[in-house]
Amino acid sequence: MPVVDFWFEFASPYSYVAALRVEAAAAERAVGIRWRPFLLGPIFATQGWNTSPFNLWPAKGRYMWRDLARSCETYGLAFKRPPEFPQNSLIAARLALIGASEGWLVPFAKAVFTAEFGEGRDISRPESLGAILAPLGLDPATLLVRARTDEAVKSRLKASTEEAQSLGIFGAPSFVTEDNELFWGSDRLEAALDWASGAAKRPG
Amino acid sequence: MPVVDFWFEFASPYSYVAALRVEAAAAERAVGIRWRPFLLGPIFATQGWNTSPFNLWPAKGRYMWRDLARSCETYGLAFKRPPEFPQNSLIAARLALIGASEGWLVPFAKAVFTAEFGEGRDISRPESLGAILAPLGLDPATLLVRARTDEAVKSRLKASTEEAQSLGIFGAPSFVTEDNELFWGSDRLEAALDWASGAAKRPG
Repeated sequence: MPVVDFWFEFASPYSYVAALRVEAAAAERAVGIRWRPFLLGPIFATQGWNTSPFNLWPAKGRYMWRDLARSCETYGLAFKRPPEFPQNSLIAARLALIGASEGWLVPFAKAVFTAEFGEGRDISRPESLGAILAPLGLDPATLLVRARTDEAVKSRLKASTEEAQSLGIFGAPSFVTEDNELFWGSDRLEAALDWASGAAKRPG
Repeated sequence: MPVVDFWFEFASPYSYVAALRVEAAAAERAVGIRWRPFLLGPIFATQGWNTSPFNLWPAKGRYMWRDLARSCETYGLAFKRPPEFPQNSLIAARLALIGASEGWLVPFAKAVFTAEFGEGRDISRPESLGAILAPLGLDPATLLVRARTDEAVKSRLKASTEEAQSLGIFGAPSFVTEDNELFWGSDRLEAALDWASGAAKRPG
């Protein structure tokens, strides 16, 4: 079974749409998905940006929120614009990496995205993350301490972000096939899966 | 019949893909298309950019050319990356506005885009534009002088570009419905047409 890396950032609105769509789309095409949390902040910083391009360029930002609302309507996803954007996603991303090694990354990631963009909650707050971890049968107190202090987890997130940048990733969500073909944006999910499964026409 | 304004910029790669797709997609949904040439340069300038974002941010630019090649393959369009990017599209845009009032805008625009991104030609050169006008049964010499000197045409292009900006347009191609719903990108063509025809679900 071919595998596609799904690179996502918890602060990214279109990563929400992709995260809630990716499983069904991949199953339809018999493609496996590896969920890869990373941070866009350090990548944006190398481009000279200190916040999201949606804040730097207001016309683009206004458009994005409207387009996101329409996309959620199209795909049947809840949408509520969070009061703060972008949200600090550091602890959530580290928790996701812990989840990757313990088998609960996917339900955790989907719950974080749904809380943030479906319910308008602030996922930078430990209480919000705790309220997501507990219903998954996980211990918030232990995990939140680990996310703040575990050096191995910190290093893994740094290494993932560096790997993303070395793959040419400049935004989220992005999809990378086993032959290193890069696709950017929730809209390119199907194209990435078709590429991986061999269904896509390839330029010469 | 509902009408969608198709805002395009001759220097824009994805405007090529949209221009070659828009007629069939609109006909399928019984939506009319009004072709609206404009210039992105003045809009980019208000964002502090002196060239295309694809040049300002190299990772994004590298991705775009690869994604464009893939999209052309998917849609069965010729693709040849032009040596220079972006190309000065001022004269081509003014010619398109003359064409709008004389009934030859659409074949002209499609031929310009195909020359530029399908054949890698430089459409800023008068000879390239002449070689496009002549086969349409038009007189290149007269039209090229008019495109350089006709004050009414110059004003119309300026007004169109200001109208685009006032609609919230920040990139090309863009689509605007009669109820002023904005869609950005060749990928949003179908969504814009579905919105116009009443087939799209609308957010509350």
